Amino acid sequence: MDVVTRSLSFHSPAGEVKDITRLVADALRDTGLSDGTVTVFVPGATGAVSTIEYEPGLVEEDLPRALERIAPRGEAYGHDAAWHDGNGYSHIRATVLGPSLTIPFTGKQLALGTWQQVVFLNLDNRSRGREVVLQFIGK
Amino acid sequence: MDVVTRSLSFHSPAGEVKDITRLVADALRDTGLSDGTVTVFVPGATGAVSTIEYEPGLVEEDLPRALERIAPRGEAYGHDAAWHDGNGYSHIRATVLGPSLTIPFTGKQLALGTWQQVVFLNLDNRSRGREVVLQFIGK
Amino acid sequence: MDVVTRSLSFHSPAGEVKDITRLVADALRDTGLSDGTVTVFVPGATGAVSTIEYEPGLVEEDLPRALERIAPRGEAYGHDAAWHDGNGYSHIRATVLGPSLTIPFTGKQLALGTWQQVVFLNLDNRSRGREVVLQFIGK
Repeated sequence: MDVVTRSLSFHSPAGEVKDITRLVADALRDTGLSDGTVTVFVPGATGAVSTIEYEPGLVEEDLPRALERIAPRGEAYGHDAAWHDGNGYSHIRATVLGPSLTIPFTGKQLALGTWQQVVFLNLDNRSRGREVVLQFIGK
Repeated sequence: MDVVTRSLSFHSPAGEVKDITRLVADALRDTGLSDGTVTVFVPGATGAVSTIEYEPGLVEEDLPRALERIAPRGEAYGHDAAWHDGNGYSHIRATVLGPSLTIPFTGKQLALGTWQQVVFLNLDNRSRGREVVLQFIGK
Repeated sequence: MDVVTRSLSFHSPAGEVKDITRLVADALRDTGLSDGTVTVFVPGATGAVSTIEYEPGLVEEDLPRALERIAPRGEAYGHDAAWHDGNGYSHIRATVLGPSLTIPFTGKQLALGTWQQVVFLNLDNRSRGREVVLQFIGK
């Protein structure tokens, strides 16, 4: 049994939903581990991780519309009144979706469905460098 | 320390919220592990896992109503316009709820509350065979 | 590699969003572990865990407003019709947010962002004693 830490770093446009499945699978292969779990974690209060079938209808239309229902952009936010950065909706969406996802792997393969991709969501209202931590635990 | 993989397979009606608490507890006993975590993971883009007090009011009325608020069935979905399978709402609900749940166990017992059950949600619009992966890590 | 279990116990007012970051960090230091993950888990069906920038605008105004959108207090709940405890909305919010969060740590430090705090949410409609289980796995 061992713990192996990897980190993904990339520039992310405002509102991006980024497919990181291959990056996670490549990092897994690089660890040499066969069976265990990987925790995919966003260090930051305006990002989140989840899974989705990565196709334009869901990613560009349907998911953004659902996030608008949970935390609309146009509404008044206490966060924005105090901090004036206009991203109160980003914080709330991130808290509801959550910053962590744990995925099993067996035989060096992630236990994902055929049409299921791992995504990082940059919920913030500006482009910036983002990091995702991958913590592998296994044998 | 060891990793033990188990898998639950079952037929699931469209929209089912299935109590899998006993199946997870049975699998834990079968591993012989005493202390660790189990990651309950849905390989598929239209299923999710969470916990709930499993009683008909919450399961059959209140939770479905909340899921309608997050992703209503009657709305137009970009996913459905492209793929014509009518389950755009299923995908969005699955992404918001999330495919993974990690539960501690100690002394061979899951650390669940008395009125807290582990549930698999088949958010899809059709019956089908479903799988849930259980990844136990512990000693 | 080892597993170490810790538990946080505290009294929590109805609706509290409690910053438990320091309690989790203190427990990590106490374990002596350097690299691994901690699963933060709520044993109970009306609590949840997530992360947020812990400032009053988000915690006291914006997050409660979003939770009202997901499960409004004023609505009729099947749970309340059967059990008469008036906390149907609490259960639904807990199921959507989820009871578990897994955070990596390296070099004895939690992999949190600078403005990202770990929070326990008492979503129930009454004050009560609450418990949060911390399951550390690492080396």
